[in-house]
Amino acid sequence: MLSNAPSNAWYPLTWSRNVERKLSRHKVLGIDLVVYRTEAGQPVAMDDVCPHRLAPLSLGKLKDDAIQCGYHGMTFGSDGRCIRVPGQPQIPASAKVTSYPLRERMGLVWIWPGDPARADTGQIYDLPQYHSKQWHSAEGDALSIDANYLNLADNLCDPAHVSFVHLSTLGSAASEDIPVEHTASDDRVVVWRWIRNSPAIPLFAKYGNFKGPVDRWHYYHYTAPCIAVIDFGSSDAALAIDPDQRDDGMRIFACHFITPVDEHHCIDHWLHVRNFALDDLNVDQRLHDDFRVAFNEDKDILEEIDRVERARPDAKRIRLAIDAAPQKMRRIVDHMIAGNSPSPIAAE
Amino acid sequence: MLSNAPSNAWYPLTWSRNVERKLSRHKVLGIDLVVYRTEAGQPVAMDDVCPHRLAPLSLGKLKDDAIQCGYHGMTFGSDGRCIRVPGQPQIPASAKVTSYPLRERMGLVWIWPGDPARADTGQIYDLPQYHSKQWHSAEGDALSIDANYLNLADNLCDPAHVSFVHLSTLGSAASEDIPVEHTASDDRVVVWRWIRNSPAIPLFAKYGNFKGPVDRWHYYHYTAPCIAVIDFGSSDAALAIDPDQRDDGMRIFACHFITPVDEHHCIDHWLHVRNFALDDLNVDQRLHDDFRVAFNEDKDILEEIDRVERARPDAKRIRLAIDAAPQKMRRIVDHMIAGNSPSPIAAE
Amino acid sequence: MLSNAPSNAWYPLTWSRNVERKLSRHKVLGIDLVVYRTEAGQPVAMDDVCPHRLAPLSLGKLKDDAIQCGYHGMTFGSDGRCIRVPGQPQIPASAKVTSYPLRERMGLVWIWPGDPARADTGQIYDLPQYHSKQWHSAEGDALSIDANYLNLADNLCDPAHVSFVHLSTLGSAASEDIPVEHTASDDRVVVWRWIRNSPAIPLFAKYGNFKGPVDRWHYYHYTAPCIAVIDFGSSDAALAIDPDQRDDGMRIFACHFITPVDEHHCIDHWLHVRNFALDDLNVDQRLHDDFRVAFNEDKDILEEIDRVERARPDAKRIRLAIDAAPQKMRRIVDHMIAGNSPSPIAAE
Repeated sequence: MLSNAPSNAWYPLTWSRNVERKLSRHKVLGIDLVVYRTEAGQPVAMDDVCPHRLAPLSLGKLKDDAIQCGYHGMTFGSDGRCIRVPGQPQIPASAKVTSYPLRERMGLVWIWPGDPARADTGQIYDLPQYHSKQWHSAEGDALSIDANYLNLADNLCDPAHVSFVHLSTLGSAASEDIPVEHTASDDRVVVWRWIRNSPAIPLFAKYGNFKGPVDRWHYYHYTAPCIAVIDFGSSDAALAIDPDQRDDGMRIFACHFITPVDEHHCIDHWLHVRNFALDDLNVDQRLHDDFRVAFNEDKDILEEIDRVERARPDAKRIRLAIDAAPQKMRRIVDHMIAGNSPSPIAAE
Repeated sequence: MLSNAPSNAWYPLTWSRNVERKLSRHKVLGIDLVVYRTEAGQPVAMDDVCPHRLAPLSLGKLKDDAIQCGYHGMTFGSDGRCIRVPGQPQIPASAKVTSYPLRERMGLVWIWPGDPARADTGQIYDLPQYHSKQWHSAEGDALSIDANYLNLADNLCDPAHVSFVHLSTLGSAASEDIPVEHTASDDRVVVWRWIRNSPAIPLFAKYGNFKGPVDRWHYYHYTAPCIAVIDFGSSDAALAIDPDQRDDGMRIFACHFITPVDEHHCIDHWLHVRNFALDDLNVDQRLHDDFRVAFNEDKDILEEIDRVERARPDAKRIRLAIDAAPQKMRRIVDHMIAGNSPSPIAAE
Repeated sequence: MLSNAPSNAWYPLTWSRNVERKLSRHKVLGIDLVVYRTEAGQPVAMDDVCPHRLAPLSLGKLKDDAIQCGYHGMTFGSDGRCIRVPGQPQIPASAKVTSYPLRERMGLVWIWPGDPARADTGQIYDLPQYHSKQWHSAEGDALSIDANYLNLADNLCDPAHVSFVHLSTLGSAASEDIPVEHTASDDRVVVWRWIRNSPAIPLFAKYGNFKGPVDRWHYYHYTAPCIAVIDFGSSDAALAIDPDQRDDGMRIFACHFITPVDEHHCIDHWLHVRNFALDDLNVDQRLHDDFRVAFNEDKDILEEIDRVERARPDAKRIRLAIDAAPQKMRRIVDHMIAGNSPSPIAAE
């Protein structure tokens, strides 16, 4: 298990499109999983290890809705219970593997690695605009990053880095010194800043039709432990819109659904939802290309930081004003982890 | 040294064909060895490290029957004793490297890594049919497997896996539920099963000329710690042969001589001895091709299990009926290892 | 930090030619460094880590003589002090990185990783002939070796290995049994031997014009902890020169300036200074090619020894007569390291 990820939470496992009528391998919170879809279409994920000789079940065969181990044929139903032991009539009572609660939402399969009794599907994140006809959503990639998932979460609670990391796509030097604001609640952090009366950033300059300066915003909505939805956009500065009029501008929700793979790896499943060029699939691809450039810029930095953190486990860090929101994010996650402990802590 | 291999035992070091008048490198039980053949044709193996500066002797030169270190020219005879130190007349008394008892048999060089005083060449395994004119033997490969040698030994005390792992070559689903029988003695385990009145497996269907169903057998003869000889074959089911009439059918001994390289690597030196198509070298190659497919199927599974065992050192395993023979095999090896300890245990 | 390298010493960091008006990465004594040259031409090296989030500063940008971190724009002057924090007016007092004393000499940038107050540039090694018009110097390579730097220093206090390792270039079997002599002082070791009336070695046979046998010499001048200058040459044996007449023969200083990178890596920055063929640049290249062959022969052995030392951390070594000088070298280094401790040891 991962030391800094709460087990009682929903995590993205993989894109729904990747779960088929065949066995595939995934890893979440350090747990190796074999994943497939039942004949009725339900996704299944269970520990990818046969309890007999520890062969990965993913080397076996899908037999109807069950998995037959590729070494000696022990067979496990989708609930993880053994239903056959070749060569002996009696099935040992302990012969089962852990099968995990799953649910599909927003194009992803979500997994609850913790106590199944606490798996409330109502807690899975949803973005209303994803389902709206006034908006268009486009599925992106699964970007693998060699870094702990919380370092990516730091990055996604942090509009300030955009002015330095993403100059060719999402940011501009004009915003370097504009402070960020934030609020935090039990399981959420929102961080934002407005850059008023400024040139359009490269991305909107490309797709918008702005004659002059714009007002632009970034709202980073983090939901613990693994979701960040970045609401950003631009509006003609001459209109001087209020924050609650963002739908009047060009607006994009860039959704990041993070899979903590293990201590030093995570996967950023990203998609975007926008309120312009709804029917133009070319814009999907052109935006995806821009996002790929930008998110790989983050990946480069996060992987280098991971390397330094491994080499300098005792390194101290200086706290800056822009760190307030990421630090609250980490406190929320710590609290969720503590809530997972079996000690008598009051229910959240 | 390897934690789970007895040092007082004969192990295959490499094929005799690989030991020449030049220095080569091998590793057995975690010991790096430099290997060569004397002018008189005797194989030599000694620790591959010069006691002066720890340079591998295999980087040096063969000078008659001695090795001259490639760094400063210290020279060691085939018994490991230093015979020259360039630049100084006196040879330090401690200047020697360990040279190991070796012996050639069945096309392999065998090594005794333990106490030389206990190295009884009478204990080296031999298969009488290998030397008989009624049989034909064909040397196979040295298959490197990234797994502990005892996991391969498990596999070679286990006919049950054949029905699931080797469907294209050695097994068929017809035998999935047929139980296995076994006997065990001080240093041996025999595991077997008969599958009566069943279609010929792919390998015998290819080389035999059976009109109808066959009786087929597998006898797995394990000799601790590193030898498994699999006697398998088929006979026309209409003949209903007794077990002691196996020579009347098509019969193959598939010999596996396992070199434990280190905790997570072993080498399967395999050959086969058969009682049909004695003069047809094409059959050698066609059988080898089939064996290569089959043994690589085992390799794939064993390497995945090794990976899982490293990741889950505390994993529990469920014991099935088919595990009785492998478990006895491991008890025999544990007993051999205990016998190696310097404590006053009665001689074996 | 490296366990067996004194921090209060000058080390070669890299060739001066590699330090430009852009950020580059280097590692010395286990310290990751970002290196560049100021507008005024001064080399700068500082810890390659931003104290905010631990991003390597080498991912950032050079802004005049300062580095702007590539993640959030914290900016550090060439002395390591933070001069800007975007988004907040106040700079935390602790916001600085370590900048190291540097100095250029003999075509290299030298670094003092220890206490800056003790960095005496007068201690940096210099070879008078390097600056003389009667001599010609030619810069070589930066040979990366996967071995601890002291094992390379052993090699460079050890003329005896030449007879066995460098037969095609620098040595010949004729010298195998000729003993070496040495002297040692506080921070130096000199080891030498003369081989009188012997065939010219391949290198001098190629460039000299000797009709008959030569007298040849090797003087290995080691200066702790990381410098070895090998004075070697040949003179017509008929002249029977005295040791102080070496300039009358063909004479080369092969300079090795060793950078300890970490416990298992070092870089040999080598150049040569010669008293013949002063204006013939072809001889530079032909000598370099020969040196490359020879130094790679050392590299091969040292890397194999490093591998063995890792595998056998408790291995004992036999001491030979030729080890007297390397052992004094190591005692000098140990003494330098002890002198770095904060305990009240008398000044050196």
